[in-house]
Amino acid sequence: RGIRVGYTPDVLTDATAELSVALLLSVCRRLPEAAEQVKSGGWTTWKPLWMCGYGLSDSTVGIIGLGRIGQAVARRLKPFGVRKFLYTGSGPKPESAAEFGAEFVPLTRLAEESDFVVVTCALTPATQGMCNKDFFSRMKKTSVFVNTSRGAVVNQEDLYDALANGQIAAAGLDVTTPEPLPTDHPLLSLKNCVILPHIGSATYATRSTMAVLAANNLLAGLRGEPMPHELKL
Amino acid sequence: RGIRVGYTPDVLTDATAELSVALLLSVCRRLPEAAEQVKSGGWTTWKPLWMCGYGLSDSTVGIIGLGRIGQAVARRLKPFGVRKFLYTGSGPKPESAAEFGAEFVPLTRLAEESDFVVVTCALTPATQGMCNKDFFSRMKKTSVFVNTSRGAVVNQEDLYDALANGQIAAAGLDVTTPEPLPTDHPLLSLKNCVILPHIGSATYATRSTMAVLAANNLLAGLRGEPMPHELKL
Repeated sequence: RGIRVGYTPDVLTDATAELSVALLLSVCRRLPEAAEQVKSGGWTTWKPLWMCGYGLSDSTVGIIGLGRIGQAVARRLKPFGVRKFLYTGSGPKPESAAEFGAEFVPLTRLAEESDFVVVTCALTPATQGMCNKDFFSRMKKTSVFVNTSRGAVVNQEDLYDALANGQIAAAGLDVTTPEPLPTDHPLLSLKNCVILPHIGSATYATRSTMAVLAANNLLAGLRGEPMPHELKL
Repeated sequence: RGIRVGYTPDVLTDATAELSVALLLSVCRRLPEAAEQVKSGGWTTWKPLWMCGYGLSDSTVGIIGLGRIGQAVARRLKPFGVRKFLYTGSGPKPESAAEFGAEFVPLTRLAEESDFVVVTCALTPATQGMCNKDFFSRMKKTSVFVNTSRGAVVNQEDLYDALANGQIAAAGLDVTTPEPLPTDHPLLSLKNCVILPHIGSATYATRSTMAVLAANNLLAGLRGEPMPHELKL
């Protein structure tokens, strides 16, 4: 007889979508760099283009993986004045794609046309290393790349090259390979790369909901009853 | 005969609202602190409540000054799952308040009930120093304060005390008194305070629009024609 395993699906969609947008805005409007300038004395008189970033108004946003989290990201980004959503992925085309006017395109076209790329797909053999040298070379020099899914979707050496060579404007990662990322990793030396310690679901409310659901799974399992969410393989 | 003065109204509404939301999310989800932990080696194994923040889901957001920028902030925050918008201010009650289900309340009630306070009002004799000791003492210990309007709306000594004593959870400021803020200012020593160098309108697109409008004002003025936007006192 096997060991029953419970899990906590769905409850982190909102928190992760929120973090994805927070990271995207933080990177495109250069918040960490700007805050650092205040501390270091780099903030002096007004200069027309100092600390300028790329806004979402009139932009094209490409979402890799328009699942639950990807859709929640699109819903949050829409009122920022996004002109066009593109998406790609292997899953079923969600009905809500029409709500955002999102167009399904091949990965190459998504890379070429997006001002902002957000990765919210699952890690599978098909998506492993998908954001690589070829992908980044198709992106615009002014575009921003954000990954809040799994670190291994990105080839980090290729991302480093793209950022260091100005092939893309900036990147934000909430996930890396490995985790934690070694503090001497080259990506951490770049001003145009913001790396977070996998805090997608890190809100008090979400972690509390996860804990209650885990406890209910456990209690049901101990009683030999159906678990609220049991992993079936 | 006086000197004619042109200005560039309205064109920075979107960029400033975007920056306000970026700063709010950055503070409530603790992005600068989390990014610092990655660099310093503070990111180790998974811990249930490490780097947890306060999400917008089911929250109450209070907006001080529901003018053009305040409304643009509310429109962007709504899809994050905000439960209730409160607002206060001396201007006319905007029709769009109904769009967000925003309720007009006195400043004291806004302070007491909001999980997030966003200041987007004009600086006037009535708003100068309005966010003071009394205001912060009414806020919840778990609430977050964001100011992207003018620095003098806030009493910075009182804000420092509220942050240092845990009377409120965190703050984000894009504006200060004075600007630039001296690098040895006490607010810069706090982990729960993020200060930006007044970058509300700092996007390439907005600054370009501002420059074109300023040039058109200037050319019209030189020709003795009506200026697209002339300051009338």
